[in-house]
Amino acid sequence: DLPLTLIAGPCQLESLDHALMIAEQMAAACAEAGARFIFKASYDKANRTSLNGKRGLGLDEGLRVLSEVRSRIGCPVLTDIHGAEQCAAVAQAVDVLQIPAFLCRQTDLLLAAGETGAAINVKKGQFLAPWDMPNVVAKLESTGNKRLLLTERGTSFGYNTLVADMRALPQMAKTGYPVVMDATHSVQQPGGQGGSSGGQREFAPVMARAAVSLGIASVFIETHEAPDTAPSDGPNMIPLDQMPALVRSLMAFDALAKADPLRL
Amino acid sequence: DLPLTLIAGPCQLESLDHALMIAEQMAAACAEAGARFIFKASYDKANRTSLNGKRGLGLDEGLRVLSEVRSRIGCPVLTDIHGAEQCAAVAQAVDVLQIPAFLCRQTDLLLAAGETGAAINVKKGQFLAPWDMPNVVAKLESTGNKRLLLTERGTSFGYNTLVADMRALPQMAKTGYPVVMDATHSVQQPGGQGGSSGGQREFAPVMARAAVSLGIASVFIETHEAPDTAPSDGPNMIPLDQMPALVRSLMAFDALAKADPLRL
Amino acid sequence: DLPLTLIAGPCQLESLDHALMIAEQMAAACAEAGARFIFKASYDKANRTSLNGKRGLGLDEGLRVLSEVRSRIGCPVLTDIHGAEQCAAVAQAVDVLQIPAFLCRQTDLLLAAGETGAAINVKKGQFLAPWDMPNVVAKLESTGNKRLLLTERGTSFGYNTLVADMRALPQMAKTGYPVVMDATHSVQQPGGQGGSSGGQREFAPVMARAAVSLGIASVFIETHEAPDTAPSDGPNMIPLDQMPALVRSLMAFDALAKADPLRL
Amino acid sequence: DLPLTLIAGPCQLESLDHALMIAEQMAAACAEAGARFIFKASYDKANRTSLNGKRGLGLDEGLRVLSEVRSRIGCPVLTDIHGAEQCAAVAQAVDVLQIPAFLCRQTDLLLAAGETGAAINVKKGQFLAPWDMPNVVAKLESTGNKRLLLTERGTSFGYNTLVADMRALPQMAKTGYPVVMDATHSVQQPGGQGGSSGGQREFAPVMARAAVSLGIASVFIETHEAPDTAPSDGPNMIPLDQMPALVRSLMAFDALAKADPLRL
Repeated sequence: DLPLTLIAGPCQLESLDHALMIAEQMAAACAEAGARFIFKASYDKANRTSLNGKRGLGLDEGLRVLSEVRSRIGCPVLTDIHGAEQCAAVAQAVDVLQIPAFLCRQTDLLLAAGETGAAINVKKGQFLAPWDMPNVVAKLESTGNKRLLLTERGTSFGYNTLVADMRALPQMAKTGYPVVMDATHSVQQPGGQGGSSGGQREFAPVMARAAVSLGIASVFIETHEAPDTAPSDGPNMIPLDQMPALVRSLMAFDALAKADPLRL
Repeated sequence: DLPLTLIAGPCQLESLDHALMIAEQMAAACAEAGARFIFKASYDKANRTSLNGKRGLGLDEGLRVLSEVRSRIGCPVLTDIHGAEQCAAVAQAVDVLQIPAFLCRQTDLLLAAGETGAAINVKKGQFLAPWDMPNVVAKLESTGNKRLLLTERGTSFGYNTLVADMRALPQMAKTGYPVVMDATHSVQQPGGQGGSSGGQREFAPVMARAAVSLGIASVFIETHEAPDTAPSDGPNMIPLDQMPALVRSLMAFDALAKADPLRL
Repeated sequence: DLPLTLIAGPCQLESLDHALMIAEQMAAACAEAGARFIFKASYDKANRTSLNGKRGLGLDEGLRVLSEVRSRIGCPVLTDIHGAEQCAAVAQAVDVLQIPAFLCRQTDLLLAAGETGAAINVKKGQFLAPWDMPNVVAKLESTGNKRLLLTERGTSFGYNTLVADMRALPQMAKTGYPVVMDATHSVQQPGGQGGSSGGQREFAPVMARAAVSLGIASVFIETHEAPDTAPSDGPNMIPLDQMPALVRSLMAFDALAKADPLRL
Repeated sequence: DLPLTLIAGPCQLESLDHALMIAEQMAAACAEAGARFIFKASYDKANRTSLNGKRGLGLDEGLRVLSEVRSRIGCPVLTDIHGAEQCAAVAQAVDVLQIPAFLCRQTDLLLAAGETGAAINVKKGQFLAPWDMPNVVAKLESTGNKRLLLTERGTSFGYNTLVADMRALPQMAKTGYPVVMDATHSVQQPGGQGGSSGGQREFAPVMARAAVSLGIASVFIETHEAPDTAPSDGPNMIPLDQMPALVRSLMAFDALAKADPLRL
């Protein structure tokens, strides 16, 4: 029942300066509001809708930037991995390895990630029921690693649409692990713009607030100073200058929720 | 931005004594917590899964009981209607006419209900997108009636399952009308028990809290002193003795949400 | 294992001449191809997306036209009903009463329809699983009426979209009653054009052929000489001049399917 | 408009003898019915529901068996790959590389597979709309490889359920590439048995026939001599002794469909 943790940052790493700028502003916003903060950014967007989508800085340069953010800002950092062979190197540079939703059942990736001993955040696949996550957890736990987080990021609902089922949060919490709401990906419209995904940015704070009111451990939010020109996920990222007010607001709901836990 | 209204009561009318007992306890719980209260119960379950399901007291006896509850408890009462020909009589006895979700596109029923001048609560069909509700609203408004409420009660999600999309609440609020979250029907499992519907009662407070945190006008909850032996919807009704604590809890989230409105 | 029956006609009745023209052409196309034919048209579109949508000729004039079609063309006629009070009168004029999908769980309507003794075609609700249809069947059978048909017309799949699950056809056939595929409504996009429904007319023959290959009893197809200017359901109706070729094609698949029944 | 190709075999490789036995019987059944045949089996089930599920023979032994089947039975062989680093080796031993549905957007895997020059069968993700497949195709085509097949294997429909949308077949055919219906995975119930997936084996022939009637290039069917004791996907595999009759039946529908192509 610790205060809410914000996992936040740009969808993809663009440069060291850019990462530091966002991490610094987010760290300040979280500190002011009493939230804990983990910086998030991807070194490789490995499953873009289209081949033309920018993929990011790549592994080597990406890890350099993430290390730098960690040491200069003094916050934990999280990034996502895409193959078993990347896990060991990435675990040197970051605090939390993230399993992408599409890959949440790839056994070798889960085992390799777990074996690093780093904390692991698994995103529930868009195709997975919340009550199927214990199978994913068991794969990770088989490595002896019990530093796990489970994230809801929306479930397939017809074509090009996701829906976030609030029941998934307490369902996944039954595993005993901290639960994260991914407020920006759950309002994505996958493939909704033909060659890229659309999104409904205006509903990300709706998802965040509804989920925080249920007493979850963490909210995941992608943010950018200029989402409309960001290299990926612009339609669903929250403008950076709106984040301080959003974090303050979420912390008020978090305090109330933690003082009045749901009993299921 | 008035305080939250609880629309609550048993799924179906069983007897005058039973209705008075529930209305009295709910009215007291709401008064104590600072919530407004509307008593809800059905005189006819007109679309039971199976022919063997009990349908209730019927129109004449049902309206007598509802009138009695209104005058003795001093609270507004709401009931659902199933045909255009019932509207005028029902509007004599109750304050709010409710359009069932399956019937939310039946033009004649909407027009007859609207023409009574009573307040109308329309449940969004399980097959309807939230942005399609303005068409429903326009049918009602064509009668000159602008005392409308719009309710989310879950959307079809595969077979025998509903999902409550939190985005539907602010979407429907764009109409300018008060929005209601039906916390107990949205966790129904339609037809999920073969000859009757199943439900996940434990998640009803989850839905209620998430929705209230978004600043909605009202929560709809079916309740019963012994849900497991109730004549209908037992699997998703909340036990009556848990309601006072739930209402108190919701009012705390309501106060916070109303003080910090979402800006979409 | 009789040859395929085509249930076909315009979405709504427009005039006697119009109904006779379509019925005559469809009867000829079916006779030539060896198919049986039932003329279908609605006297009242009682659940239009928007209040501005045309509703049709109304009960009295509609029944006159349907009777006339029946006697002049010599084919059975089918129409849909919207309230229990309409059933007796409609059953005088037509051979098959149709229960609309939204109303497939309205007990009183089912009972009143069953009691007429007319054949009843029930459309499975967009919100209903195929294995829930036996409950609907039992309501009808309770009247002693066993002249039933069960129709698949698509199931809710996200917002503004339906999907036709081919498994529903053999599932519903387990009841022992003839199964109908509604090829044009299953490609509807409900509410998909704001104030009216969209549709994907080009996929209606896909649905029809896939379903007929499974050995079903009947295909339901709405058709019009100029779908783009039709008063309702234009986006999914098949142009009348394409029907003869389509019927011939379906009959070839029907013959093969009936000679080689699926064994489940 | 070549005759139908059967892609068939056991879910996972169990031994050389087992693979040869199935390949031999399937090759004979296909030859007798006039169908072309590609043997399918997996060397690694890399995304089992649970860690306890058997994964198969592994890469080295698996490729040895697949090569042996190819040379002894004289049929092309297909297997699925799970990482970019596997593609070159696998392409030495088999004719068709298959991209698993969960991995259909992993850019590096698609590029590495395409670069082998082998034929590539991509399964459409359970989370992907059919009209999003051109983005997947473009990734593969960027390698100069135009020997592609596109497979429908079902789309997420609520929790633990898939639905096969027949519209997806002609939609994907618009790319100009051959379209495959995966008749056994589309009736899977993912995670539906807690620690493993369930399935509705009885509906696999339904899916196959409906799809073949639309004139597709190929049907994918997993088969086993004793599905109920198979190491994976038993609930949805078709018993081997039922395959000859099924192939004969499908070929009759294939001939009719190819003689009467759908015009969209």
